[in-house]
Amino acid sequence: MNLRIGQGYDVHKLAAGYEFWLGGILIPYELGSVGHSDGDVLIHAICDAILGAACLRDIGYHFPDTDNAYKNIDSKILLQDTLELIKKEGYYINNIDATVCLQKPKVKDYIPKMRDVLAEILEIDKNTLSIKATTTEQLGFVGRREGVEAHAVVLLIKE
Amino acid sequence: MNLRIGQGYDVHKLAAGYEFWLGGILIPYELGSVGHSDGDVLIHAICDAILGAACLRDIGYHFPDTDNAYKNIDSKILLQDTLELIKKEGYYINNIDATVCLQKPKVKDYIPKMRDVLAEILEIDKNTLSIKATTTEQLGFVGRREGVEAHAVVLLIKE
Amino acid sequence: MNLRIGQGYDVHKLAAGYEFWLGGILIPYELGSVGHSDGDVLIHAICDAILGAACLRDIGYHFPDTDNAYKNIDSKILLQDTLELIKKEGYYINNIDATVCLQKPKVKDYIPKMRDVLAEILEIDKNTLSIKATTTEQLGFVGRREGVEAHAVVLLIKE
Repeated sequence: MNLRIGQGYDVHKLAAGYEFWLGGILIPYELGSVGHSDGDVLIHAICDAILGAACLRDIGYHFPDTDNAYKNIDSKILLQDTLELIKKEGYYINNIDATVCLQKPKVKDYIPKMRDVLAEILEIDKNTLSIKATTTEQLGFVGRREGVEAHAVVLLIKE
Repeated sequence: MNLRIGQGYDVHKLAAGYEFWLGGILIPYELGSVGHSDGDVLIHAICDAILGAACLRDIGYHFPDTDNAYKNIDSKILLQDTLELIKKEGYYINNIDATVCLQKPKVKDYIPKMRDVLAEILEIDKNTLSIKATTTEQLGFVGRREGVEAHAVVLLIKE
Repeated sequence: MNLRIGQGYDVHKLAAGYEFWLGGILIPYELGSVGHSDGDVLIHAICDAILGAACLRDIGYHFPDTDNAYKNIDSKILLQDTLELIKKEGYYINNIDATVCLQKPKVKDYIPKMRDVLAEILEIDKNTLSIKATTTEQLGFVGRREGVEAHAVVLLIKE
């Protein structure tokens, strides 16, 4: 059994006039996530963790924010493409754990839906995809609601 | 062998007039950790890593800061409850590694005691529970001594 | 098979008049990394992840910034010393994944060289050492170019 550990970290600005995509779903909120793509910080952190574990560079390498092909793209497509990249190398996902850091809104009630959506794309049992949430107690750029960040770890296996 | 990786991240404000609980022990310091519970950022990050690895939601889900039952609670009780939650699922802890980020005071000399206390609660050998510390070089909210943060990873096993 | 997970996080200030060492190589840039050593934030995060996984304290414990022996030291030496510490305990490195967070400059093109340099020191295949990079979208101390940070995870094995 060949194990690989990976981690991901991503940040996006929050601003009025943007949609707030998070974990593959649209969250109703007065601010949205700014990005070249749809700005889904949780999917991006998960993509980076998966790519890193497989030693396949990072999300900026495969899907550069200077490429118009990825302008406003649904990050779920990037997640699907990431899965294809590691499948080619013979890896599958053992489990994922992630944390979204944002001051507002409360996302607790959206997490089951996010897990359903992302687990289906990744072709894994939703009981191997954990999403957590925390505020930063009004501290830093997350606490000031200037941005949202996400941390993720993943364990890949090749048999 | 069934492996599960998890990660946790937590932040608490530092302020005068509060006790500074960290890693299950009381640290003498002019500032303390603000929280609904005792504000032990290290225990909270470890709880979240354990819960995330077992895909059992997060610390805010099990011990909400809107519930008076957890007002000023000793976080060591939350850690014990977290252990019970994963034991019910058949998991045990392989090892834990964590980092506390704070500008002051130096906690190096307190770490052996923290490891003793937390390893006993978690029923693991203290040589499978690592605690590290770093400053953020005066940068950000940690560097300005407005807050303290902790990162943790855990590996769970189910035989 | 005895597995151990570890994580590392480190921060250094950026300032004019310093060299910018990152991942064991010198990056041409108008700002450099401030530290007691050469300030290589990526190597430091990796050292901490390795030490944490082996439960051997942290980089500040082994190489204190109050010790003149480590003044301006090349962090590649610290990485080599870290490897020796875990080899004594019978561990070897399964794989490493890390992310550098910095606003500027783009380091994408330097990553293959960093992986070559670090994998050679760590005596591992460069396909088990992943380095990723991200900006923080102008947010926080990284976004304001006041500092650089790195996150790392590692999986160690003892047979």
